Parts: sequence; C-alpha cells; structure tokens
Amino acid sequence: MSGTDKIKIGIVGYGNLGRGVELAIRQNTDMELVAVFTRREPSDLRIRTTGVQVHKYSDMKSFIGKIDVMVLCGGSATDLATQTPEIAKMFNTIDSFDTHAKIPQYFALVNESATASKHTSIISVGWDPGMFSINRLYSNCILPGGKDYTFWGPGVSQGHSDAIRRIKGVKNAKQYTIPVESAVEKVRKGDNPEFTTRQKHTRLCFVVAEKGADLSVIEREIKTMPNYFDEYDTTVNFISEEVFQKEHSGMPHGGFVIRSGATGENGEHKHIIEYSLKLDSNPEFTSCVLLAYARAAYKLAGASQFGAKTVFDIAPALLSPLTGEEIRKKLL
Amino acid sequence: MSGTDKIKIGIVGYGNLGRGVELAIRQNTDMELVAVFTRREPSDLRIRTTGVQVHKYSDMKSFIGKIDVMVLCGGSATDLATQTPEIAKMFNTIDSFDTHAKIPQYFALVNESATASKHTSIISVGWDPGMFSINRLYSNCILPGGKDYTFWGPGVSQGHSDAIRRIKGVKNAKQYTIPVESAVEKVRKGDNPEFTTRQKHTRLCFVVAEKGADLSVIEREIKTMPNYFDEYDTTVNFISEEVFQKEHSGMPHGGFVIRSGATGENGEHKHIIEYSLKLDSNPEFTSCVLLAYARAAYKLAGASQFGAKTVFDIAPALLSPLTGEEIRKKLL
Repeated sequence: MSGTDKIKIGIVGYGNLGRGVELAIRQNTDMELVAVFTRREPSDLRIRTTGVQVHKYSDMKSFIGKIDVMVLCGGSATDLATQTPEIAKMFNTIDSFDTHAKIPQYFALVNESATASKHTSIISVGWDPGMFSINRLYSNCILPGGKDYTFWGPGVSQGHSDAIRRIKGVKNAKQYTIPVESAVEKVRKGDNPEFTTRQKHTRLCFVVAEKGADLSVIEREIKTMPNYFDEYDTTVNFISEEVFQKEHSGMPHGGFVIRSGATGENGEHKHIIEYSLKLDSNPEFTSCVLLAYARAAYKLAGASQFGAKTVFDIAPALLSPLTGEEIRKKLL
Repeated sequence: MSGTDKIKIGIVGYGNLGRGVELAIRQNTDMELVAVFTRREPSDLRIRTTGVQVHKYSDMKSFIGKIDVMVLCGGSATDLATQTPEIAKMFNTIDSFDTHAKIPQYFALVNESATASKHTSIISVGWDPGMFSINRLYSNCILPGGKDYTFWGPGVSQGHSDAIRRIKGVKNAKQYTIPVESAVEKVRKGDNPEFTTRQKHTRLCFVVAEKGADLSVIEREIKTMPNYFDEYDTTVNFISEEVFQKEHSGMPHGGFVIRSGATGENGEHKHIIEYSLKLDSNPEFTSCVLLAYARAAYKLAGASQFGAKTVFDIAPALLSPLTGEEIRKKLL
C-alpha cells in the first residue's frame, strides 16, 4: 500500500491517549499519522513521529481534505463535549467519551453535526464503554434470561487517583480498583448472586503525603469521600515519593464482563460467557481500540453512512484491513 | 407485542439443535414458532410447543409469506450444503455450517440464491464458527501485532464420539476434548508460545464395549486413528452402559479464545484479551446464538440488505430487540 493510499489520521490532544494513538499507528500498516493538534503551544510538544508536525488546535480547518479521521484524545469531562460536535463538522471522528449519563445528549449533538456535514463519528470507543459494552450486548441477546456482571480491575482508576490528589496534604496518589475474588467466583459458578457495591470491588490507595501532613486526617478524608470511596472497603497506604515513582507509575487496568444464563425445559443447563481484559497500559490499549474504529469510520464515510454511531452500530468486519473473503477464510 | 407482530420462526430439522431452538424461542418474547419441517414422517415427531404443527420438508413452499426466518438445524456434512441454497430461494435463513474448508464455496452458493430471491441468509452462526470467530476478529484488529489461540473444551466432540462408535465392538462412546491447563496458563501470561497439536489438547474417551470384544484392540484403534486421535494424547476408559447413561449423557462444551499482544515504544506493555464459554449444553447454547442472528436477518431483510452474510457482517445492535436509544442507555 503506497503512502497516499493509507488512511490519514489526525490526533487531537497529546496526553497519554494521544501518545498511545501515535504509537499504535505504527502497528497498523494501512494508516499514517498526518498531524497532531494541541491547545498548548505546538513548539512545546515533542512527538515521536519524525516528519510529522504539531499544529494549533485552531489551525485544524486548513487540514480539511488532508485527514481522513480525527482521533480525539481529550477528556470527557471538559474537552469532548464541546470539541467533538465542532470537529465533526470538518472531519470523521473517533472519541472515547465515557460520561455515561451524558451519552444520549452527546450522541444527539454529535449526530447533528456529523449528519449535516456528511461525516461519520463513532463515539464512546475504548474498552468500557467499548469492548465491554459490545460483550454485554452480545451476551444479553444470546442469553436473554440471564444476568450480567461487570467487574473492573485490578487497575488504576484515574478519576479516583485525581480525587485523592485534591485532598489537602496529598502530594501524589494512585488508586487501584480491585474486584473481589470471591464475588467473581460466585458469578463464574452461575449462582446469579445479587451484590452491593461493597461486595464487588475494593479500593486500594497509595498516597505520598506532604511533609508534616496529618496522615490520619487524609486517610479519613479518603475513606469517607462521597461517591468515590464511602460505599467501598478502602485501604490507604502511605509511601515515599521514591517508592511511588518506582512501583506505581504504570497505568494497568482490565476487568471482566460475565453473563450467566440458563436454557432447557426447566433452566437445567447453565451457561457462562466471560470476556476479560488484562492490560499493562490502559491508555495504550484504548488507543488500539480507537484506531480499529478509525478504520471503520473511514469505510463507513466512504459508503456514505454518515452521522453519529456507537460500537453497537459497527459490524466487526469494518474494523479489519482484510477483505470479507480473507476474514471468512482466516478467522471464521 | 401482539402475536402477529412477532418474528415468525420456522425450524428445519428436529434433532438436538432443532429442539434447542424450539426451547430458546420461549426466552425471546419477540419471536414465535410457526412450524417445524422434517424429512422424517411428520406424525412420528412429538414437539414441545402446543398448537404448532410438524410438516414435511417438501411442504415448505406453502409457508412462503408466513415465516420470516427459517432456522436450519441440519448437519454441515450432508444437509446444509444442499438445503440452504434451496431454502434461501424462499426464506431468510440462519444456519450453523461449520465445515471450515468449504465455507467459501458454501457462501458463494447461498449468496447467489439469497441475492437473486431477495432474502437474507446468515451462515456459519453459533459459537465456533460464530462467537469465537467474532472474538478472533475483534482482537486481531485491536492488537494487530499479537498472536491468538483458540482452545476447545472441556467438552464433548460429537464428531470424535461418532468416530469411536464406528469401531467394531464399540456399543457406545463419548469423547471429551480437554485443553491442556499449562498451555492455557502460558498463553494467559502473554508468553506467546508455539504449540504442537499434542501440546494444546488431550482427548478423553469413555467407551461401552460389546460383550466379548477385545478391549486392547479397541483402545489401539482409537489411539491410532488418523486425523481424529493420532496426533493427541488420548486416554480410553471402558465403562458400563449404566455408568455411561448416568454420567455421560450430557453435551457440555466450551473453550477460550485468547489474544495476546504488546504496545509501547518497544512492546513493553502486554495485553491479554480472553473470551471464554462454559456451556452445560452445546446444542442449546448454539440455538440461542442462532435465534439472536435470526432477529438480525429479519431486520436486514426489512432493510433490503439481501444476500449471504456471516457474523462478521452483522452489527451487534441488530441482534437486540431493543432500540438504539435503549441499548446506548442500558448497555454502553
């Protein structure tokens, strides 16, 4: 495939996710990175791809026609809700919007922009929402009488780590979400148990305190923090900055989606469907998912299938660089 | 939903799979069974659904317009290759064709019939081919540099059990395919090992011999049988008919699809994607998958998307009885 036949990718936002997308493009030989866009000063960024330039966010429109799909790597809280509807007027887009309660409203906004401008925007791509959602949907459809369970972790929750860092006297912090092993085992046995929030996950925190801070106050503030920690069994460990940098600088994550259901004359046959991820780097894996869906957006736009879509609307074959004939032969 | 709004299902073939589909229709409230078709004498069959009749295979054409989707429950070896292209001229179809080497040719035949007659035929539906194939495809697209592994079992292989039953002196037999635990563990660790056939699965056989048969001859015949057993470590246990009926009358199966890949500047971050099934009844689970795809075939035909399709071509949302808005809200 010659350079000009490749799918031309633009990256918007160069944090962990943007860097992950940049690296993942190297593994997808049918794609090439055209430009990175940032709201920071472009000359302040050093990217890893030789020959590719960083541009101002506001210069994006001069790339209309030169980029096939923009991969939006901003955060859901502040960036995507305004950026995506704007960018979808100019480009096909992929994003990982994950503020669940706001998805209907976000979908409507992006759909309006993308439909009017004849672009394809796949929203809420990643692993949850994303691959986990797909697995919930498939297994709900296959075992309609069943019950499903999503467990997250063991892994770092960025949101919970941030929440701890906002506490006075905290210099650095990382929070691991841990699925309760015995709960997972009960589900795997097909017992279809009911769980409280506390029974499914525990929270494990590693905190670097400022000099002279009152550790017991910090610990109490964490454990009683509404929404984030109060409904969980939380363990707080205070460690040095050195240990923190050495042992807690990664961003591993993962989890399980398990559905259990029964069939037969009287439900005598149990079935368990389980999808699990074990990820050394949450942002790098998410980036890989984003790129697979960038390929789908490119194909859909080529087929005039415009508007907002979610992973539910995308046939698996659209993610692949191979032809229908090849995937039937190799993977069916 | 009133009776007449339901998706009208016909079942062709009333073996284990046909009976499974009949039971699964009860769990899908948007579907109803209209008729069962058989090449046996219809009055010889007793089905479980009151008010539904069994008809001759040859009477099918009188149901044109009265059945939305025919679920074909015949075997790949003899039935489907001729039945599906025939039936696709009259109805939308779903089948579980699983003779891998013949899929390209089968796809072409079914596609020709279905396209010409404006029907939708989804072929090779089930769990492998089927859900396992989808998972191989998704994870190949997400981790293009990775390696994937499919393990089957522990579970009953119908084909291997049949092969043993054809040996002289064998009255009854059941063969369980067992994945080698240590091999699965190596894959889960992300070691990306290479395996021989023998290193991935073992074969465990329970055999009821005829009176006076030479057990050592039977055992040797099993273990040296080309294609079926010679490349595996096989264990043969002789048991009584009574124990056989009591302990080996079920049809459990399952398995794992695992893909392992790496990302980062130098592949320093490993990722493991695993999809697993643990099924008490292989035919009943397969039936559930067939029905979910019957819904998709019904929707696609309604949208004039005719021709042969595989699970790769079907967007997940098409399997669901819910609207796009509902699944985004509940499952994304």
